[in-house]
Amino acid sequence: MADYRKMWEDLGMDVEMHDQLCAVLPQAFGDVYLSQENRPEGMDYYNMVVADIHGIRPAELIEHQEKGGKVFGTFCVYVPDEIVFAADAIATGLCGGSQFWVPGGEKVLPTNTCPLIKASVGARLDRTCPFFRIADMYVGETTCDGKKKAWEILGEDVPVYVMNLPQMKRAKDVQAWAEEIADFKNKVEEFTGNQVTAEKLAKSIKLINSKRKALERLYHTRKQDVVPISGRDALLISQIAFYDDPARFTQMTNALCDELEQRVENGVSVVPAGTKRIMLTGTPLAIPNWKLHNIIETSGGVVVCEEMCTGTRYFENLVDETKETVDDQIQALAERYMKINCACFTPNEGRIDDILRLAKEYKVDGIMDVNLKFCNLYDTEGYFVERALKEAGIPVLSIETDYTDSDAQQLRTRVSAFIEMLNH
Amino acid sequence: MADYRKMWEDLGMDVEMHDQLCAVLPQAFGDVYLSQENRPEGMDYYNMVVADIHGIRPAELIEHQEKGGKVFGTFCVYVPDEIVFAADAIATGLCGGSQFWVPGGEKVLPTNTCPLIKASVGARLDRTCPFFRIADMYVGETTCDGKKKAWEILGEDVPVYVMNLPQMKRAKDVQAWAEEIADFKNKVEEFTGNQVTAEKLAKSIKLINSKRKALERLYHTRKQDVVPISGRDALLISQIAFYDDPARFTQMTNALCDELEQRVENGVSVVPAGTKRIMLTGTPLAIPNWKLHNIIETSGGVVVCEEMCTGTRYFENLVDETKETVDDQIQALAERYMKINCACFTPNEGRIDDILRLAKEYKVDGIMDVNLKFCNLYDTEGYFVERALKEAGIPVLSIETDYTDSDAQQLRTRVSAFIEMLNH
Repeated sequence: MADYRKMWEDLGMDVEMHDQLCAVLPQAFGDVYLSQENRPEGMDYYNMVVADIHGIRPAELIEHQEKGGKVFGTFCVYVPDEIVFAADAIATGLCGGSQFWVPGGEKVLPTNTCPLIKASVGARLDRTCPFFRIADMYVGETTCDGKKKAWEILGEDVPVYVMNLPQMKRAKDVQAWAEEIADFKNKVEEFTGNQVTAEKLAKSIKLINSKRKALERLYHTRKQDVVPISGRDALLISQIAFYDDPARFTQMTNALCDELEQRVENGVSVVPAGTKRIMLTGTPLAIPNWKLHNIIETSGGVVVCEEMCTGTRYFENLVDETKETVDDQIQALAERYMKINCACFTPNEGRIDDILRLAKEYKVDGIMDVNLKFCNLYDTEGYFVERALKEAGIPVLSIETDYTDSDAQQLRTRVSAFIEMLNH
Repeated sequence: MADYRKMWEDLGMDVEMHDQLCAVLPQAFGDVYLSQENRPEGMDYYNMVVADIHGIRPAELIEHQEKGGKVFGTFCVYVPDEIVFAADAIATGLCGGSQFWVPGGEKVLPTNTCPLIKASVGARLDRTCPFFRIADMYVGETTCDGKKKAWEILGEDVPVYVMNLPQMKRAKDVQAWAEEIADFKNKVEEFTGNQVTAEKLAKSIKLINSKRKALERLYHTRKQDVVPISGRDALLISQIAFYDDPARFTQMTNALCDELEQRVENGVSVVPAGTKRIMLTGTPLAIPNWKLHNIIETSGGVVVCEEMCTGTRYFENLVDETKETVDDQIQALAERYMKINCACFTPNEGRIDDILRLAKEYKVDGIMDVNLKFCNLYDTEGYFVERALKEAGIPVLSIETDYTDSDAQQLRTRVSAFIEMLNH
């Protein structure tokens, strides 16, 4: 810890303020995670990562920079990490999942902004997130009103490159996204001084696909009747996927999957048979936002799937690995990324199909449609999601929440009543 | 009125509910408008239009439909009316400016949606707006999260065609908008059965430019030391511009301008010399939203300019009339429309330049930065607007409001204090 403190000071962080965050996280993590029984041994790795999440990985990123490499901070699953890694740079997630950072964001953003955006901006402006201090460039996108305008404020502090994500999914929009990726490649090449060759891009496409396959494999174990891993643990892995070294993450996740598959074979479950299987759908749950999973899994349910950016939207669909020119590879990237069904698109019927499909695949008993307060996109789309679920006869609970704990008791009451209802 | 009642019934409107609206509007209009002293005589025309706003113009639109013409309902100043008129169709604004319609919208939309969108959707779903009943097709755009998703709900009820407005203003975005306009032209041609020829488009470009010039001329009279027209009246004209027959509107507005220019020459002002000149900037004020203008102008100030969609953003910049092919005309349209500086773009520095320029041109004493509640775009951009105004030494008051009257007293207190401050 002493070494990290020096590192944080060198990064120009507000170390005193950051200490307050460091003081509460272990307790929160212990309460939600370490209290669980019968956890897979493979979770040790992720426990270690999260215990020093502002230490270990930041130190690696700094080491990379000291060797002349660049670090790109990203906010969204539409930004193609493949381009960044192909330029010998590293893409990393940033901070944005704690109420700790929200007041800092509210200094410059409307209160009526979703907590994820407020926390991200606050983490940067308050200098309490090492990833925000380390990143040489941030990559924004035009996914929602709140983020689109937040880039302008962030951009006064550090270089922000914004990708114009089309708002629809016609053939010409996929082409427009391919052009945006090509522009991004040029920017990354210019900024890093490294050329993105077909060879390097092919390698990074394989690298990121491997990560996706490992997560797909992890999620596959959650489809079984036996539940070999808690929703909390799976969520933590999804969250860490945004930060960790992709190759190591893939290796560790595959090792965990070996254990989980063995558990499935041996009928080892983390919950009693008959525990109601819950799927969450909606807005992302950035680390350390474990509130809902914790409430559900301490109220008699188990989370078996997240149709979220921190979930299936992150890893489903692979990039075609057979392309041999940069142009073709970029086209393949555009096609894969445009398959993600975010509520920022109009229309976004594919998401309804995804939810109904996942509900079947994961043998879901009930769905919670979760919205981060002031996310108008997912909130409005909830109208269609909930209607489709009702038509399909799948029980659904609509939840709006933020990062505060003020609604925890009320949420627990509603979640318990929902699971109780599923039990009868 | 009896005839209109029959027309409303034939339109499938909820006439009983609509009666409630009709019962309160004359009183509201009387209080805000007819109580004014020394109004220009030319306002008689607009008084008449607004008195029967759900009667006269709807009857004309129906007559147009009976002759085989189509009517397109639009929500936004980015949608090029020129294309619609060139296909012998009519473009019209819809309803969205009254709290009366908000509860209907809240049945399907999140409460945390701006009142303009909630009112629009409510007016349609409750069947209390003739324009919404008449329009054969609605034209949406991807300007904000709330509208983008609202189209999906509206689209279940009537055909909605959505134009994908780029979120940035690079050269390629102007080209993308030109392509969207070309696609829209094809859609309009298909839907109306009428071809948009270069000749017809040239004519409609001139028609809409003439309307813009008349509004520019109207606004020019407000730049003078003598204030020949109240802000309320000017706002009403801007609001009616979205509904009225363009040729007649242009003619009547030019006739009014003759009178106003005469007033300027004769030194006839609607307010005492030295009355503080206020500019409003921010979100649109759809008819019958006269709340702020009324408060300002009954608190010792006068509104001389609106940097709003119901204001300068609607009429500034003309379409180049010299182009001779449809392709070139569409290019000219794209270039003109992309000059509008809406907060939905990132970045949107042009709007700051506009505000500073307009503040000078209109000899403004103070600015009110007005935000419709839950409009995240203008709310976030307010950070830059207010900073720029402070740097320029222009007093600014930030106002967030909705369509209810619940904050009227508080607004009056704040507005009075602001004007008081300007007076000292």
